[in-house]
Amino acid sequence: MARIEDYAPIVGKGEVESIKELAEHVKGAKVLHVNATKFGGGVAEILSRVVPLATSVGLKAEWETIQGEKEFFFVTKKIHNALQGDGSVFLDEEMMRLYLETNRRNASIIRDDAEVIVIHDPQPLPLIENKKGGKWVWRCHIDTSSPNIEVWSRLSGYVRKYDAAVFSLERYIPKDLQGMRVLIDYPTIDPLAVKNMQLTPTEIQKVLERYGVDPERPIVGQVARFDPWKNPTGAIDVFRMVRNELDNLQLLLIGSFALDDAEGEEWYNKTVKYAGGDKDIHILTNLDGVMDKEVNAFQRSFNAALQLSTREGFGLTVAEALWKGVPVVGTKAGGITLQVIDGVTGYLVDCIEEAAERVKILIKKPWLARELGYAGRQHVKLNFLITKGLKNYLRMHIDLVGK
Amino acid sequence: MARIEDYAPIVGKGEVESIKELAEHVKGAKVLHVNATKFGGGVAEILSRVVPLATSVGLKAEWETIQGEKEFFFVTKKIHNALQGDGSVFLDEEMMRLYLETNRRNASIIRDDAEVIVIHDPQPLPLIENKKGGKWVWRCHIDTSSPNIEVWSRLSGYVRKYDAAVFSLERYIPKDLQGMRVLIDYPTIDPLAVKNMQLTPTEIQKVLERYGVDPERPIVGQVARFDPWKNPTGAIDVFRMVRNELDNLQLLLIGSFALDDAEGEEWYNKTVKYAGGDKDIHILTNLDGVMDKEVNAFQRSFNAALQLSTREGFGLTVAEALWKGVPVVGTKAGGITLQVIDGVTGYLVDCIEEAAERVKILIKKPWLARELGYAGRQHVKLNFLITKGLKNYLRMHIDLVGK
Repeated sequence: MARIEDYAPIVGKGEVESIKELAEHVKGAKVLHVNATKFGGGVAEILSRVVPLATSVGLKAEWETIQGEKEFFFVTKKIHNALQGDGSVFLDEEMMRLYLETNRRNASIIRDDAEVIVIHDPQPLPLIENKKGGKWVWRCHIDTSSPNIEVWSRLSGYVRKYDAAVFSLERYIPKDLQGMRVLIDYPTIDPLAVKNMQLTPTEIQKVLERYGVDPERPIVGQVARFDPWKNPTGAIDVFRMVRNELDNLQLLLIGSFALDDAEGEEWYNKTVKYAGGDKDIHILTNLDGVMDKEVNAFQRSFNAALQLSTREGFGLTVAEALWKGVPVVGTKAGGITLQVIDGVTGYLVDCIEEAAERVKILIKKPWLARELGYAGRQHVKLNFLITKGLKNYLRMHIDLVGK
Repeated sequence: MARIEDYAPIVGKGEVESIKELAEHVKGAKVLHVNATKFGGGVAEILSRVVPLATSVGLKAEWETIQGEKEFFFVTKKIHNALQGDGSVFLDEEMMRLYLETNRRNASIIRDDAEVIVIHDPQPLPLIENKKGGKWVWRCHIDTSSPNIEVWSRLSGYVRKYDAAVFSLERYIPKDLQGMRVLIDYPTIDPLAVKNMQLTPTEIQKVLERYGVDPERPIVGQVARFDPWKNPTGAIDVFRMVRNELDNLQLLLIGSFALDDAEGEEWYNKTVKYAGGDKDIHILTNLDGVMDKEVNAFQRSFNAALQLSTREGFGLTVAEALWKGVPVVGTKAGGITLQVIDGVTGYLVDCIEEAAERVKILIKKPWLARELGYAGRQHVKLNFLITKGLKNYLRMHIDLVGK
């Protein structure tokens, strides 16, 4: 269990001291986080680290997940897609009933003595109906800049009942939330988590060999859920284009299936089909034993990381790659543009052809990849590490319940 | 002119504060450094940064060089080689007379009010004959672990007249200095110097193109004076061996001619001859316009850096490469073994064949080069940056004249 002091070798003693000072103002505050799942996806990952760390600086932080049937998560995935802009989603009365009813059945996870209740993403949003006391915060991790209006209008009433709403980017804030307290908070990564920690070259090599990836041939990869927004087939297109010139290239597509991700399997199958049995395309998931350490090792093996999302919440996988010194070739979607500074920490691209050109040049010039990767690491260190997130989190709590 | 505060973004505010606290104990102390040359070679480089930095924390630090004829520097180069173990060197009476006489003529550079006089390397060693007051320190930057006994016996009497002698490594301390105050101080590099500062990818690329080095083909290089101990021809052997397998490899041999380096030209010519007109071997010096910025850019372009010295003082060029994230393949000579941690920041090798194998693998596995390079950077950050050197320097002054 990480303590704040463990981060001093990475961010410096001064930063750790300033976090401890902030924490003094909310010492002992009872905070409850609620999301949809303990495993899989960026939110669970953030919470699994933020909650112990908040505890280590003196808050009484807890974390609960709502329980639901497969059908509930099917509906919430639809809602998720709709909030990200999928206009084809329609919520019928039966779906809304299931959504609200499941939340009602989860009411008991809200303890009466909680001072701050942080609800993550749309799945547990209607829990606000059970508000008795405390300050309620809705933490939205997805890109709600142009939501499906019909779906959003069925949810926004719940959002407005909260004491505050937090978004990952300024432009994600829906236009009809004027008048309520809205905060911006970039997501962050944990440099001490298994997914990001230092590995030895031998550990990296072993993972590559275990999955039949040749450590002596160039590797490009995308770490992302199998999902239409992440564009895994686009990554295959880039790979094929680059391979026309660099014929020993390998592609890694690495994802994981979250419990609330009903579409994942379908998109995984689509991706496998699109790869057409190509031996140099490795499509790997948690079902293949690819857990945090393996993802870490694979990311460290990339000549360049791809992030070709057509829509993106924040894109923590970009920060993860940059933190490992790997330059990222990414689209201009969501938080990718905050992390990839074009020509400095990687390249922002508009199309598959451009992505292929950038990948090619990064493979041909390892010195360029190293310089961009180093700048990327510095950029993440200054802006997207968990210590920075913890500071923002403490400031919000001071604002709501601080002494 | 660098101020100590400028290093805070690199080493952290805490480290800068602890340096300032140390400096309080020797505020205003008058310190005079003397060496042989203002330009070229590691010592001049160290002094050009340490002196202003010492001034910025409150010491009154000055730097003088002794003046001499070409013949004097020919003799001191012989002495240098002899102290590094060259048994063939013989100093006749005429040589000794020239050596001592030139030092006598330089006596006036020692100001009467200097509280600490730091004499660097053998060239100005006999200046101690003019000692009137102050604490005298002989700072030896070379490997004197097994000196030419006859030559050393003619010099050691002068060394023993000093108040303290400082060596770069424990094992450099000659055995007959028992009883005198002896300190160890690793040399360090300045991350803000033009030679080490961050460059943009465009700046790097421009330097490569200006000298006809292809930025899209692998590059291995050695930065070192042209000198028998640095083994530039060994670097050519490694290059040829690696090129048998990787036929698009390029070699860069980068050196500079110091004013006191009479042998440099001869060894440069030997190296050029050994390269035999090979278009992929680039032998470059300050006479080609390769100054600090160009060296910086070239080092950043290396897939791997070579340091094949058969003898080495400390080998600051190793720290320079590691600081830039470049793994180093080096011999087990002198300070190289302190900087290259085998399999962690690079590879230590026993022969040309082994060096070639390591270079090959680092070119084939850019991910491995990145991981070693990152570890190297961390290693330099913790141990071989100028801020660390300044702390040791202040501690020595506190010890000699501290309040």
